[in-house]
Amino acid sequence: MLEELKQKVLEANLLLPKYGLITFTWGNVSGIDREKGIVAIKPSGVSYDDMKVDDIVLCDLDGNVVEGNLKPSSDLMTHLEFYRKWQNIGGVVHTHSRWATSFAQAGLDIPALGTTQADYFYGDIPCTRLMRDDEIKGQYELETGKVIVETFRNRGIDPDQMPGVLVHSHGPFSWGKDPYEAVHNAVVMEECAAMAYASLTLLGGAKKPMQKVLLEKHFMRKHGPNAYYGQK
Amino acid sequence: MLEELKQKVLEANLLLPKYGLITFTWGNVSGIDREKGIVAIKPSGVSYDDMKVDDIVLCDLDGNVVEGNLKPSSDLMTHLEFYRKWQNIGGVVHTHSRWATSFAQAGLDIPALGTTQADYFYGDIPCTRLMRDDEIKGQYELETGKVIVETFRNRGIDPDQMPGVLVHSHGPFSWGKDPYEAVHNAVVMEECAAMAYASLTLLGGAKKPMQKVLLEKHFMRKHGPNAYYGQK
Amino acid sequence: MLEELKQKVLEANLLLPKYGLITFTWGNVSGIDREKGIVAIKPSGVSYDDMKVDDIVLCDLDGNVVEGNLKPSSDLMTHLEFYRKWQNIGGVVHTHSRWATSFAQAGLDIPALGTTQADYFYGDIPCTRLMRDDEIKGQYELETGKVIVETFRNRGIDPDQMPGVLVHSHGPFSWGKDPYEAVHNAVVMEECAAMAYASLTLLGGAKKPMQKVLLEKHFMRKHGPNAYYGQK
Amino acid sequence: MLEELKQKVLEANLLLPKYGLITFTWGNVSGIDREKGIVAIKPSGVSYDDMKVDDIVLCDLDGNVVEGNLKPSSDLMTHLEFYRKWQNIGGVVHTHSRWATSFAQAGLDIPALGTTQADYFYGDIPCTRLMRDDEIKGQYELETGKVIVETFRNRGIDPDQMPGVLVHSHGPFSWGKDPYEAVHNAVVMEECAAMAYASLTLLGGAKKPMQKVLLEKHFMRKHGPNAYYGQK
Repeated sequence: MLEELKQKVLEANLLLPKYGLITFTWGNVSGIDREKGIVAIKPSGVSYDDMKVDDIVLCDLDGNVVEGNLKPSSDLMTHLEFYRKWQNIGGVVHTHSRWATSFAQAGLDIPALGTTQADYFYGDIPCTRLMRDDEIKGQYELETGKVIVETFRNRGIDPDQMPGVLVHSHGPFSWGKDPYEAVHNAVVMEECAAMAYASLTLLGGAKKPMQKVLLEKHFMRKHGPNAYYGQK
Repeated sequence: MLEELKQKVLEANLLLPKYGLITFTWGNVSGIDREKGIVAIKPSGVSYDDMKVDDIVLCDLDGNVVEGNLKPSSDLMTHLEFYRKWQNIGGVVHTHSRWATSFAQAGLDIPALGTTQADYFYGDIPCTRLMRDDEIKGQYELETGKVIVETFRNRGIDPDQMPGVLVHSHGPFSWGKDPYEAVHNAVVMEECAAMAYASLTLLGGAKKPMQKVLLEKHFMRKHGPNAYYGQK
Repeated sequence: MLEELKQKVLEANLLLPKYGLITFTWGNVSGIDREKGIVAIKPSGVSYDDMKVDDIVLCDLDGNVVEGNLKPSSDLMTHLEFYRKWQNIGGVVHTHSRWATSFAQAGLDIPALGTTQADYFYGDIPCTRLMRDDEIKGQYELETGKVIVETFRNRGIDPDQMPGVLVHSHGPFSWGKDPYEAVHNAVVMEECAAMAYASLTLLGGAKKPMQKVLLEKHFMRKHGPNAYYGQK
Repeated sequence: MLEELKQKVLEANLLLPKYGLITFTWGNVSGIDREKGIVAIKPSGVSYDDMKVDDIVLCDLDGNVVEGNLKPSSDLMTHLEFYRKWQNIGGVVHTHSRWATSFAQAGLDIPALGTTQADYFYGDIPCTRLMRDDEIKGQYELETGKVIVETFRNRGIDPDQMPGVLVHSHGPFSWGKDPYEAVHNAVVMEECAAMAYASLTLLGGAKKPMQKVLLEKHFMRKHGPNAYYGQK
């Protein structure tokens, strides 16, 4: 069932070690078949070296396993919250990549300081508020997704123009139109975090956000209605 | 004698260069057969490229060599102190990995700032006090072990929930139920140190410890009685 | 047409991933045939893994494509401004390499702090002013080139002695007598930026420029009329 | 002539890219035959990929080439000053390795903060004073050697116990009993610089030198008359 989706999700998971985004099994990628309402996701705690297409777990949007012998990633319920609330996304990634996680641990947005970030993210990459005790002690992974969705709603951020987030004291999630694009955005977020780190520490922490008009120019020349970057 | 243990200890030692934890011969792994009370450890100053299973040295818990033609690691007596005092551990690692050692040189704990650390270490990874002159001039390696054990006792830390430590002005030790898990924890400690470094310098040194309830949630979902992470 | 130039430009582009200067397709190299007034440049948004010599696009100095089925790099007009204004250069490189971009995001020159930089760059590597709104909203890539040329003119910098620049809030460009030398200078700039970052943060941001006489000595022993470095 | 020495010097030079100490040709290793008073050194500006044993240049202690078709490294006269003044050394290395050079650019010693450094260097690795104008404009490379020797004499440092130095605004030199040991010490110095950088920036620049007794313990257990580290 859904062999093509499972194959894509497997391949996208294997890109995480290739791009240096993960240590051990600290990451997971999922993808969705919107028509069938089925999500394919990495199994929990399985080594990337040994992962096969049949290890990928299929679930419905409530988290019920519909195919697969392994337990799905423990972060499943966070992924599902995104798929339920954000209709345009087709793939989700979670990692503990070094630089993005360092911003999450500091509780800081990754500020938009240059065109590298502007090419993919339409502004500062937001960091959520701290989770409340009841959220942590309750359905933790689901609540993590809810806090992220709340952050986007409260700050008026469009997930289609901001394909990533930091969970406070935790780490990054990213997404895209399919699992590959979600990984692509995870790589970009990590590189933007590394460069923002260096820029901020060079400036002694004084944040100098980039010009709004430059942010708009770079985001729109790639993603706007008159985009002219690439071979499109 | 104890060929399987020696093989494991060899393999675990060879993971140190694989994971980028060592320069030259600056690291060592040991493992114990609890029934026989025999410890297998890397020989001193031997290159990882050339190490064979027969180079692994077997010692009793007092440090007497019971098999092997080479001298054991000069850190042997530190390892033995752990095996004598902490009954649940089966493997020990010492390295001079870059980021963990940088915290040791600064004399600072690696603070628990996020869930990456909470998944493995139940709080701040402690840094010992400075060693006294008599300890350094006496049975130095044994005293190193004693200062570590003292640190855990004085601060009320359980080595089963905190499988690593920094020795002030020196570097990290870690442990686990076997030599592989000890190396696994060494890799995690190094990554946590790298991320704590970045988070702290982003914040200008202002330490913002993570929420206790989040620390507990993450540690317990992997290691508690109702753990649900992985395929267990 | 101009097969040799296209081959050189292809090879020089492939050096960017080899030297770790790029993520995905974030970079481009061009070269010029001065006699014919034709520039060869990387196509826009094409993966380095798949690039072939026939993908290289040929343009005249006004930016008209004269050969090739793909769109040229979106940065073409910046490259062309250099070729039009600076007669001695034969190759141009643009990347978003991590350390140089971090200085660009901070809006800071890469200060000449040591002989590594002095061997290639005759002083601080300049960062441009912020671009104005009308420049960003207008012919943006052309205006980027113009701001760079203006920076060199206003600060009295000779592009033959300073083969690199940072565009504020964006990233580095470099050049040389041919595409290979342009890449060589991009590698050097990146390494100089990394070391300047570390030196500046060690000093708490206090800039201590190197001695002018040492700068002159090192630049001139490689590039002056009596150069004696290398086998020349 | 001296084929074995030339072979060693070639191999030691090839270790520089292997250990990540150099970019392009920015480094050189030499070795000496004390009996014959002949020094073998890397040729100037030759790529490591292409270097052959016959490219190694032989010189006498005054810098006259006695064998070889290529020009010796431009740093030859610095190396020779060490061989003339320090009788126990058999190999010399110069690089622009990133972290050591960053300290040199900041004009700072690499402080002894931990046992990693103490295992090889008996204290802070010194940084020279700034060179004077007449030294830079005169026989620059020879004067560089003289300033280093002066630094050791004035500060009462024994080059046999401190096999490395930083030249202010320039970079590191190291040495040892043969070319391999000189490279080994260059690798250690670079790693110590990286860790000192992290420790110092964690502490906000507040230097906390390690205990003298710990420094002595570690240096002497490897290099003292009663050394017990390794298989000796």
